[in-house]
Amino acid sequence: MIKAYAAAAPGAQLTPFEYDAGPLGEHDVEIDVDYCGICHSDLSMLNNEWGFTRYPFVPGHEVAGRIAAVGKNVSKFKLGDRVGLGWHSGYCMQCHTCMTGDHNLCDQAQGTIVGRHGGFADKVRAQAASVVKLPDNLASEVAGPLFCGGVTVFNPMVQYDLKPTAKVAVIGIGGLGHMAVQFLRAWGCEVTAFTSNEAKKTEALQLGAHHTLDSRDSKALADAAGRFDLILSTVNVSLNWQAYINTLAVKGRLHFLGAVLEPVSVNIFALMGKQRSISASPVGSPAVIATMLEFAARHQLAPKVEVFDIKDVNKAIEHLEHGSPRYRVVLKMR
Amino acid sequence: MIKAYAAAAPGAQLTPFEYDAGPLGEHDVEIDVDYCGICHSDLSMLNNEWGFTRYPFVPGHEVAGRIAAVGKNVSKFKLGDRVGLGWHSGYCMQCHTCMTGDHNLCDQAQGTIVGRHGGFADKVRAQAASVVKLPDNLASEVAGPLFCGGVTVFNPMVQYDLKPTAKVAVIGIGGLGHMAVQFLRAWGCEVTAFTSNEAKKTEALQLGAHHTLDSRDSKALADAAGRFDLILSTVNVSLNWQAYINTLAVKGRLHFLGAVLEPVSVNIFALMGKQRSISASPVGSPAVIATMLEFAARHQLAPKVEVFDIKDVNKAIEHLEHGSPRYRVVLKMR
Repeated sequence: MIKAYAAAAPGAQLTPFEYDAGPLGEHDVEIDVDYCGICHSDLSMLNNEWGFTRYPFVPGHEVAGRIAAVGKNVSKFKLGDRVGLGWHSGYCMQCHTCMTGDHNLCDQAQGTIVGRHGGFADKVRAQAASVVKLPDNLASEVAGPLFCGGVTVFNPMVQYDLKPTAKVAVIGIGGLGHMAVQFLRAWGCEVTAFTSNEAKKTEALQLGAHHTLDSRDSKALADAAGRFDLILSTVNVSLNWQAYINTLAVKGRLHFLGAVLEPVSVNIFALMGKQRSISASPVGSPAVIATMLEFAARHQLAPKVEVFDIKDVNKAIEHLEHGSPRYRVVLKMR
Repeated sequence: MIKAYAAAAPGAQLTPFEYDAGPLGEHDVEIDVDYCGICHSDLSMLNNEWGFTRYPFVPGHEVAGRIAAVGKNVSKFKLGDRVGLGWHSGYCMQCHTCMTGDHNLCDQAQGTIVGRHGGFADKVRAQAASVVKLPDNLASEVAGPLFCGGVTVFNPMVQYDLKPTAKVAVIGIGGLGHMAVQFLRAWGCEVTAFTSNEAKKTEALQLGAHHTLDSRDSKALADAAGRFDLILSTVNVSLNWQAYINTLAVKGRLHFLGAVLEPVSVNIFALMGKQRSISASPVGSPAVIATMLEFAARHQLAPKVEVFDIKDVNKAIEHLEHGSPRYRVVLKMR
């Protein structure tokens, strides 16, 4: 039996919950969970904001752990390998998208916490293809959040062949944004953090930002006209997007990583004159995750985490939902 | 004196108008105009739709002609060279954008008919950098429209490194779209023309489209979900953009070439799941124009034109504004 923590209904407290995962699939692995991050999408799922949560619901899709068992067709892992698991726990492995390495965009990709039980547990299972080995010099405690939040911000740097000479801005210095700043700095870019919070300005500079820009200062925004080659938006609230678009350079891109629910209104003239783009992407593929882990380990980058014991899971959720975590909340599972 | 046709006020008929262009600038050329296309933006300027037209107004920015005089610093042309001139008649030549070859995105780029007199005249002047030589096997009669409408549709194929293996759709089979279909076919792509007009369906197939898709047929649109790597929109009216976005493949791009005045409302989720982009661009640089001309000549592609004598300029404008030209209207100047 797998010992997990589950919510019985939307928004309910998590309580101990056991389930029998059955025989291990031929292409699957079982992971002993050491740490598991809590992501805002765990909260969205917990509260059934997207309408497809199944209860009892076991959150957790930022897993760091060790291989406990492998299915009979799995050759890439051996028992005890330190690994991680993110938003996706399986792919069809057959469609054109999978066959071109874009597993994260596979129509049939399986969410780790969508219709199945996630990583707030002593063990979790997943298709081996979705699991990635951790570099030796990357601590398990900080590895989990890289598998969802981390790769979400790293992926566009790979997808759009971001040049180290680029000027990049980050909107939202939080769970995602604080990783984006670190990755972009190590990538060689000029990094600007958009933030109106004085404490976060200081922290953004400590994380590697070269500049900060107060997004509520309309003069400062106007002065930044035509400046950024790329803006990564990590927030999920509606902002004055046109003001940000105006800060894009020739051929600049405003890229959304936060799931903004309200439609974004785009003035085509503002794109046209400078050949600007607007785009969005979800998490990354296992190959991009592996590339990111190597890059993070080489540059000794990691998310800043606050660690809670799994017994305090409800307190940890409360902290993420209503506190001001700096910056990622991680559960210690054993 | 240069003998032109000008409007004295917004929307007025064009009448003969002479002006003294003064001494020829050191970096400029004077062109004997043989043919000049009429573009929808000539009409927008004629009617002062964008608010910056100066009267008397001489339209015309799709010029094909011959070099009649060169400024003392111009070495790239000799008298009699067959050349063309498009939307831009000069660039600052000094900014980073110009220095990286993106002259068309230069903040200081000078519009051929913006605050100066255009090509509905026996002669027109421009900075030599904005003028491009015509290949020997490209007829002057059809060359003009390539310099504005042609390069507008060709430019994104260059800018985004369009692959010949891509599936591309064109919205609007008109002055721009009918050139897009031809270029995309010659580029090697699978080409789909979005049109609800029966006659244009037949013509689109004759121009090289592999398929047509009736954009008013919601089932056909739904069946095309996830199909196109690139959609080029050449219209300037508001459509159900979300329905088109749904037809974009993984990493697909909806690219606007028509100046849609109403904001486009974008659902970020619809971009995110498939890593789609939305973008827009204006005309191309002189280097892209030269590349396009060579490509057009090699493939013996050209706009379909209806030629009017300059004496019938008002009839020609009326035909473009209220008729159904197939597809570009060109004035014969001499």
